[in-house]
Amino acid sequence: MMATLAELATLVQGEVRGDPTVQVERVASIDQATEGDITFVANPKYLARLKDCRASAVIVAPGVAVGDRDVLVAANPYLAFARVLAFLHGSSEQNPGVRPGAQVADSATIDSTATIYPGCVIGERVVVGPRSVVHPGVCLYADVVIGSDCLLHAQAIVREGCQLGDRVILQPGAVIGSDGFGFAPDGSGYFKIPQIGIVVLENDVEIGSNSCVDRATLGETRVRRGTKVDNLVQIGHNVDLGEDCIIVAQVGLAGSSRIGNHCTFGGQSAVAGHLKVGDHITIGARGGISGNLEAPHQVLSGVPLMPHKEWLRSAMTLPKLPEMRKNLQQLKKRVTELETLLKEDGCA
Amino acid sequence: MMATLAELATLVQGEVRGDPTVQVERVASIDQATEGDITFVANPKYLARLKDCRASAVIVAPGVAVGDRDVLVAANPYLAFARVLAFLHGSSEQNPGVRPGAQVADSATIDSTATIYPGCVIGERVVVGPRSVVHPGVCLYADVVIGSDCLLHAQAIVREGCQLGDRVILQPGAVIGSDGFGFAPDGSGYFKIPQIGIVVLENDVEIGSNSCVDRATLGETRVRRGTKVDNLVQIGHNVDLGEDCIIVAQVGLAGSSRIGNHCTFGGQSAVAGHLKVGDHITIGARGGISGNLEAPHQVLSGVPLMPHKEWLRSAMTLPKLPEMRKNLQQLKKRVTELETLLKEDGCA
Amino acid sequence: MMATLAELATLVQGEVRGDPTVQVERVASIDQATEGDITFVANPKYLARLKDCRASAVIVAPGVAVGDRDVLVAANPYLAFARVLAFLHGSSEQNPGVRPGAQVADSATIDSTATIYPGCVIGERVVVGPRSVVHPGVCLYADVVIGSDCLLHAQAIVREGCQLGDRVILQPGAVIGSDGFGFAPDGSGYFKIPQIGIVVLENDVEIGSNSCVDRATLGETRVRRGTKVDNLVQIGHNVDLGEDCIIVAQVGLAGSSRIGNHCTFGGQSAVAGHLKVGDHITIGARGGISGNLEAPHQVLSGVPLMPHKEWLRSAMTLPKLPEMRKNLQQLKKRVTELETLLKEDGCA
Repeated sequence: MMATLAELATLVQGEVRGDPTVQVERVASIDQATEGDITFVANPKYLARLKDCRASAVIVAPGVAVGDRDVLVAANPYLAFARVLAFLHGSSEQNPGVRPGAQVADSATIDSTATIYPGCVIGERVVVGPRSVVHPGVCLYADVVIGSDCLLHAQAIVREGCQLGDRVILQPGAVIGSDGFGFAPDGSGYFKIPQIGIVVLENDVEIGSNSCVDRATLGETRVRRGTKVDNLVQIGHNVDLGEDCIIVAQVGLAGSSRIGNHCTFGGQSAVAGHLKVGDHITIGARGGISGNLEAPHQVLSGVPLMPHKEWLRSAMTLPKLPEMRKNLQQLKKRVTELETLLKEDGCA
Repeated sequence: MMATLAELATLVQGEVRGDPTVQVERVASIDQATEGDITFVANPKYLARLKDCRASAVIVAPGVAVGDRDVLVAANPYLAFARVLAFLHGSSEQNPGVRPGAQVADSATIDSTATIYPGCVIGERVVVGPRSVVHPGVCLYADVVIGSDCLLHAQAIVREGCQLGDRVILQPGAVIGSDGFGFAPDGSGYFKIPQIGIVVLENDVEIGSNSCVDRATLGETRVRRGTKVDNLVQIGHNVDLGEDCIIVAQVGLAGSSRIGNHCTFGGQSAVAGHLKVGDHITIGARGGISGNLEAPHQVLSGVPLMPHKEWLRSAMTLPKLPEMRKNLQQLKKRVTELETLLKEDGCA
Repeated sequence: MMATLAELATLVQGEVRGDPTVQVERVASIDQATEGDITFVANPKYLARLKDCRASAVIVAPGVAVGDRDVLVAANPYLAFARVLAFLHGSSEQNPGVRPGAQVADSATIDSTATIYPGCVIGERVVVGPRSVVHPGVCLYADVVIGSDCLLHAQAIVREGCQLGDRVILQPGAVIGSDGFGFAPDGSGYFKIPQIGIVVLENDVEIGSNSCVDRATLGETRVRRGTKVDNLVQIGHNVDLGEDCIIVAQVGLAGSSRIGNHCTFGGQSAVAGHLKVGDHITIGARGGISGNLEAPHQVLSGVPLMPHKEWLRSAMTLPKLPEMRKNLQQLKKRVTELETLLKEDGCA
């Protein structure tokens, strides 16, 4: 794909400073860009690197001076970079259809513009929508519904009856609809509770590699519109995860937790079961939500959760603990001596 | 599936209060139940919701009043719910056999009542027992033994020589028998230690989605009867995990740890290598076992582990640390002043 | 495979004490060894167990007395054990070639000595080198390059354009080259940033079961020569992980972190994004690197990181926190009383 700086300016609603006819065909980092590439500087501290940069054009924020280069000025250079990247490097499946070596049940409905790669197994009554691409080894159990423009990477699995909206992306090995972890003690051991609910992934949801979203015991587990889930994340049965959330790698959301919209959970953080979390809650890496958290717009870290800045102070104190303990003991001794002294002498 | 309330009472050894001839065909939650559904109230705080509930019957504990509804009284309503769910919604494979598109080695022995789905690859000398169901994309390496009534979900992997008992369930993407993580420094780098042992999963074990159970270096890694393992759990080489344990998501059990029976490990908790853990040990979420723990019947949390209630107190103190440190410093100053004062004046 | 003690002594550059003609064919643990087995004692505390051991030979360190047994003396018994294990139990694919049921694109180049198992899907222009073995269900996207003597286990996935060196091992379900987790807020929701870079795994790298190595946004994510990665590890986009590192299970390396050589990260530890970590850094289990760490040769634990011994002391203090807090309050009271007393009486 190729474009002039002027065309890209239109794409990102920016302005050209310099020659609008400059041709660019690729996006590259400052250090690796060569002629024909466009690069970007979102962070002023990297401006110095531009001196030796051989890119044909640069995306910068308004008011950023980069000498006499050909420049694409955009209010949000990072977003503009993303849009240009998608425009120049975005690919669409050239050759749709069900490939030889895919196994599709007769009762399945595959849109004629969808692509099913070899090694896929598509179960009874499955529906795959327009322009969706299903990579090798994907397994869709019976009664699964896949919307339009979805991208299911190799060996993603969607179990019986689960539903994906439009533009849903599953990275390789993602598991949608595995049994929730539910067992009833029966006196001798554990009786497995059948998990007969489903999982619903709404439009524009992305689930990372080898992440797991368990089906509900009854009803549904739901991930709402626009939420992005990183790799190796666990989402338990009957979770309701809100819209436009960012769930970083290795997070665990225990069963029946209800998370609001626009939440961001840092890596390895966790939410205990059956909790309510409000909107716009940000949890630092490895933070642990162990109680309801309904007031919106909080930035919290640690276990127990504290406002992030308090947590930083608290954490910085941890290395001092042994010294604090020693001081405390010495102080106790000194105070006792003072007390004795005062009792003994004439002062008391 | 359909049943009368009387039939279900027999199934769960409970009693009918009301009309024993009421027909139910599905289980549903209080909020979603409609006519023909049976619901349950395990937790009294949800009793209020029954007012508007349209279920045909309700499972409750003895002595719980729910007006003039048709009721199934069971000593353990949660267990009764699970049993009814399994009875009404349990499915068995209608159409056993090796499906077209499955690749089975000539030397493999597949019971005539077992089901092998398309896209499976079954290696040399593998044995699959009666009524076991192997979903698409499952790979069984050479010499694997699968017992009877097992359920292997899509893309589960069992590597060479590993053995599954009866009624074992593997959720999608579970990996049984991958190499243990063993390397010997050879001066320049690391020399891989071949892992020639196996994994044994005893009867009624369940392993969650994308969880990993590593094969032993020599001998075996064993998960004992009735133990349930959630998603994304790591079980290292030569681990011996006892009977009827509950291992919640994202737990890590390091190599050669020996865990007793009836243990419960909360999400993201961990056990260091080569440790012994006794029976009936419960570890809170993210707790870390870093030493032997042989005394049974303990409930522990934190790092280092403490009795759960002590851990709660300790955790609650963390936010106070900066203030404690400040107080300590001020106190030190005040005590020094007192000491000086007493030295100076006539008292000392 | 079978060998005399003398042959094994040559293999491990050790010495025979006793009969050099003794035949051994297997390696076994002290407790399970029988005739024809060789066992080893790396740790003196296990010497006692040798008394009842039926092994035909024992690997020990110089100067270790084990009675009148036939012994293989090696400077590093653990390494010698590993080498003997590889020699006696190492297998090489007997029957190379592309097996029926594998789907290989016409434009792919598979070396005649490589093995492609059934159920594999090999994309356009893929190259698989000499003696590499690709197990069932592996998916190699277009333009992937696999070196020589690689071992790709069942359902490992390598996405478009990623490159593996020689002797690389992927355990089952490992995902190489999934999209990095990058999104640009666009005012309403998140705009996905196309990830057009690749992953490079250098020679002798091993990646564990269901671990994920994300492709770079631009450029490459790189894991350098000889580094070993355990199961369920997350390696973010644009990470540069050095040579001969050991990354234990469930570790998370956030995007763009640059890790030096000879680092060892304990289970569930983590590195935040965009950080530099020097050579020979060892991080204890669940330690968290939240800032640059460029000075080499450190052993650190905890959050925040501290020298490991300090962390142990600090951790041991945590259970004392509630008591410390109480003491501090009492002490404050006593000091105040002293101060009052001194003000009141004639001393002040």
